[in-house]
Amino acid sequence: MAVFLSPLLDQLITHLQYLPGIGPKSGQRLALHLLSRDREGGKALASSLLQCMDAVQYCQRCQTFTEEALCQICQNPHRDARLLCILGSPLDLLAIEQAHSYNGYYFVLLGHLSPLDGIGPEQLGIPRLMARVTEEVEEVILATSPTIEGEATAHFIVETLKAVNKTRSTPVKISRIAHGVPVGGELEMSNSNTLAYALNDRKYVHA
Amino acid sequence: MAVFLSPLLDQLITHLQYLPGIGPKSGQRLALHLLSRDREGGKALASSLLQCMDAVQYCQRCQTFTEEALCQICQNPHRDARLLCILGSPLDLLAIEQAHSYNGYYFVLLGHLSPLDGIGPEQLGIPRLMARVTEEVEEVILATSPTIEGEATAHFIVETLKAVNKTRSTPVKISRIAHGVPVGGELEMSNSNTLAYALNDRKYVHA
Repeated sequence: MAVFLSPLLDQLITHLQYLPGIGPKSGQRLALHLLSRDREGGKALASSLLQCMDAVQYCQRCQTFTEEALCQICQNPHRDARLLCILGSPLDLLAIEQAHSYNGYYFVLLGHLSPLDGIGPEQLGIPRLMARVTEEVEEVILATSPTIEGEATAHFIVETLKAVNKTRSTPVKISRIAHGVPVGGELEMSNSNTLAYALNDRKYVHA
Repeated sequence: MAVFLSPLLDQLITHLQYLPGIGPKSGQRLALHLLSRDREGGKALASSLLQCMDAVQYCQRCQTFTEEALCQICQNPHRDARLLCILGSPLDLLAIEQAHSYNGYYFVLLGHLSPLDGIGPEQLGIPRLMARVTEEVEEVILATSPTIEGEATAHFIVETLKAVNKTRSTPVKISRIAHGVPVGGELEMSNSNTLAYALNDRKYVHA
């Protein structure tokens, strides 16, 4: 990009492009907005970024992001320890929490299985997940993304849990979140796979 | 927004919203992207932000952004000192430089006239502009935005320059960049004002 405005400003525009979805043009717009209208905001953002990048790590229990050893959900003794929901990313955890429909604990996988990229069960934290499925846990809810990688990862976890179940006094129940037509969505906008799920998993209405 | 992930992360998501166009959802996405995939990028961005917010100020000659007393364009002795182009923002300066069609100097107004908001000629730097229009400058090109505020500002500058011209040995020429149908654009997509300009300012084709 341009190198005539000011080297510091050019560098800021380049570095803003580390943010996904920000290209050269929007980088210019963001940088000039902060400089002309919100320098204090820019400084506050810089300081949060530094603190976060340094201090935020993975929760030792569920692998979501936290600056403490255990995240605030894992620290909360009032959640239902019989339920463990397995997710593909911390964003999915946020989405489920915002739905206010689940009160168990979580386990966040660090990505999806991808043997060609060298991402195996170890990299996702599956050994830690198996250690997490103690006798106290009665049901594991699989909520990985409904993509090929997500399905492959879910399949691998199911197989591993089946093996674990042979050693348990009470086998852990394994469930998968429902797929179907989104609530508030248009039927005609749903893809064929979703419609196939919606039809196969139809529920009878008690008359 | 959510306050359960981690206080530091929540703060980062809030501060990312100082960027125009970033709301709570995209703030989450940006923050988690940096944490999971690009912590070094996040730190580099933080450090550029801090440096920029502290060091970048207005060029003493043309009022664009620079960390030196004069910007790199004003420092360049090889540009055409007879031309001075007046712009409404540093983004407009970048856009004109990227068109590679102008080799004069610039003057960047710090906004547009808005008496109700207390933004008068002083706030835009118009006294500094008038001092900038030395005998050496032969033509002032008005390139403020074609909006009501931009037109009002341009009108004010024209009137001020006319008064200045009475004191000059050679009056400064005043021009306005052309308005018309954008090159590469569809005629049918142009608004009525643009089409009116395009028709009134039509050029005869020499047969």
